[in-house]
Amino acid sequence: MRPLSDQPEAGGAAGPSQSERLARAAWSRISEPADQLAGALVAAYGPEEALQWLRSAVTSPQSLDSRFRTAVERWAPRLEHLSPARDLEMHYRLGGLLVIPGDPAWPERLADLDHAAPHCLWVRGRLPNLDPAIAIVGSRACTRYGESVASEFAFHLTERGHPVISGGAYGIDAAAHRGALGAGDGAPTVAVLAGGADRLYPAGNASLLQKVIAEGALITEMPPGASPGRHRFLSRNRIIAALAGATVVVEAAHRSGALSTANHASELLRPLGAVPGPVTSVASSGCHRLLREGQAVCVTTPAEVIELASPAGSGLAPLPSEEGGSLLDGLDPLASRVLDALPSRAGATVENLARVSGLAPREVLTALGTLELDGKVRRASGRWARA
Amino acid sequence: MRPLSDQPEAGGAAGPSQSERLARAAWSRISEPADQLAGALVAAYGPEEALQWLRSAVTSPQSLDSRFRTAVERWAPRLEHLSPARDLEMHYRLGGLLVIPGDPAWPERLADLDHAAPHCLWVRGRLPNLDPAIAIVGSRACTRYGESVASEFAFHLTERGHPVISGGAYGIDAAAHRGALGAGDGAPTVAVLAGGADRLYPAGNASLLQKVIAEGALITEMPPGASPGRHRFLSRNRIIAALAGATVVVEAAHRSGALSTANHASELLRPLGAVPGPVTSVASSGCHRLLREGQAVCVTTPAEVIELASPAGSGLAPLPSEEGGSLLDGLDPLASRVLDALPSRAGATVENLARVSGLAPREVLTALGTLELDGKVRRASGRWARA
Repeated sequence: MRPLSDQPEAGGAAGPSQSERLARAAWSRISEPADQLAGALVAAYGPEEALQWLRSAVTSPQSLDSRFRTAVERWAPRLEHLSPARDLEMHYRLGGLLVIPGDPAWPERLADLDHAAPHCLWVRGRLPNLDPAIAIVGSRACTRYGESVASEFAFHLTERGHPVISGGAYGIDAAAHRGALGAGDGAPTVAVLAGGADRLYPAGNASLLQKVIAEGALITEMPPGASPGRHRFLSRNRIIAALAGATVVVEAAHRSGALSTANHASELLRPLGAVPGPVTSVASSGCHRLLREGQAVCVTTPAEVIELASPAGSGLAPLPSEEGGSLLDGLDPLASRVLDALPSRAGATVENLARVSGLAPREVLTALGTLELDGKVRRASGRWARA
Repeated sequence: MRPLSDQPEAGGAAGPSQSERLARAAWSRISEPADQLAGALVAAYGPEEALQWLRSAVTSPQSLDSRFRTAVERWAPRLEHLSPARDLEMHYRLGGLLVIPGDPAWPERLADLDHAAPHCLWVRGRLPNLDPAIAIVGSRACTRYGESVASEFAFHLTERGHPVISGGAYGIDAAAHRGALGAGDGAPTVAVLAGGADRLYPAGNASLLQKVIAEGALITEMPPGASPGRHRFLSRNRIIAALAGATVVVEAAHRSGALSTANHASELLRPLGAVPGPVTSVASSGCHRLLREGQAVCVTTPAEVIELASPAGSGLAPLPSEEGGSLLDGLDPLASRVLDALPSRAGATVENLARVSGLAPREVLTALGTLELDGKVRRASGRWARA
């Protein structure tokens, strides 16, 4: 392993050592995402010692119990060509950083993934404080309605200081990133990729992802060059769900991968929102299922999304005014009944009004007094009429 | 009171007497809808004796406690012109019937309203068995989307034997009745009016309501000639909610009266559904609030509505297939990882595949076996390629 220049802007004196950084970079190439055995090993021994253990285990696999033997057999083929220093140099050349546990920028929320937490994050751009971050996800096959909701929600969330996290894919993801970028000096947006940070995938979003790097951050647990296979997309979704304080699914068909992000959010006990849409739209069917099964809360505005992400009780939207009252134009029920009983043109006596409204004569008189004060009725020669 | 011909098709020998029928008709004119004191009185003494009590109470109101004094003062003005026999004759001439507790057609579900149950139902047309009935309600100010959902849901529910109950109003109500009528020989539809059955209100729906009478039933707790005041609309909604096994709100703005039907359904512990719509549509905002607050279940198809109305467990929709499986085209996860690792054109060795997929060589071999059986990969000169 050739000597490696220290990471630019590294954690400082108290931060992790460069050899720990190298070891974590190595593990990100050795084990597939969410490999809990690798996670447990690194957690127990630290990344460097776990790597030493692996190197010796490869030479005498027969001494291992069957679970570890399979794991070592999986990891071993990647030990040969391993060069974390080369990976890091390549990443630094792209302006990237490797963020690992112990770095100030390491998102503490990832700890909720336990042994499935990523070994490290390959970051391009600047990772913002993700405490107020919200994930907006959805289908690639989306509708204009979904795109416009994703983009508008992202714009307003960003404007109000909530970094918007998404997956950089076509459709809802792209609309969310674009909406967030559109807010200008709002919170940065973060794209979590399923492949290496050097591969701006999908290609059609390359220029969008360049803007995300310039104004926010692109992150991945995969080392440079890694291809975004399907199971990596599914594993990647756990990181989106874990990083965000809340996740919102804007549009998702029944089999959309966005539902896996939703499931990860639920498992992590993170608040989950779903945007409703027309029942005639297949693109909303997954959202409706989340709502129907009580897995997600119905969110229809950026304010409701923020409410979702906020600790209970804080930032609650004001309650709509009492329904009964509003239906009766703010009148008390008795006054409303008397007003209803008044003919539209002619006048009426208190006795008429009592019979028609079904109220006692003195209740009618009280109500008429209130209505008169409100300027809604007037008195003329012993009869009452609408004002 | 002039002598009254017996009700056509009355309950039979064991059914209620004609004088009980007359007394309930009288109470329906004396007290306003949902007057719980009148309900309690009639429940305690029977309608005839309660009426006698009221006639004597009017002559000596000073002996009453204050709660009853107010009630008697409310009811007294209507005793003067009371003529239930005349009301019934007028109703019979329109081909109507008065259905009261004890009649075979009396809907037992109304008992859940307790003392707020109607004294009687003024019915035109034929009241069907309402056990499988479902209420479809919504705003007058609705969109084409709401109209088409209401009409389609009503059509399919009717076709499957569920009478559709609504309020006969413009908008969603009318679309529901129309959809139900369109099903031809399906279950009949029922309109619950807030005014007298002789007044086909609103006038613009008169011909629709005539069809409802011809093929289903129009019902109201109000005697002939009664006008549909606003508080009567709100009270009427409790009857819709009580009669139906489940209530579905198709479209409702934040202050829509349909939400009062929803609230009645909740109070009665009846299943409540809400149809989602675009978040950009004010007409769906009330539905979204019901979903958001967990008051209603999200329903998107007639089948889901039937499921809502069915006793727990029966008629449940089949569960969608396992998500992970479908995302991976039905492959087991290891096979999918190996397939992902195969280059799109060139072939690869087991060693290549192990390194790229992150699996042990023998796992790769097993997966390749499965994939070969599925016809997804083929072997050529020691290398593997996509088939």
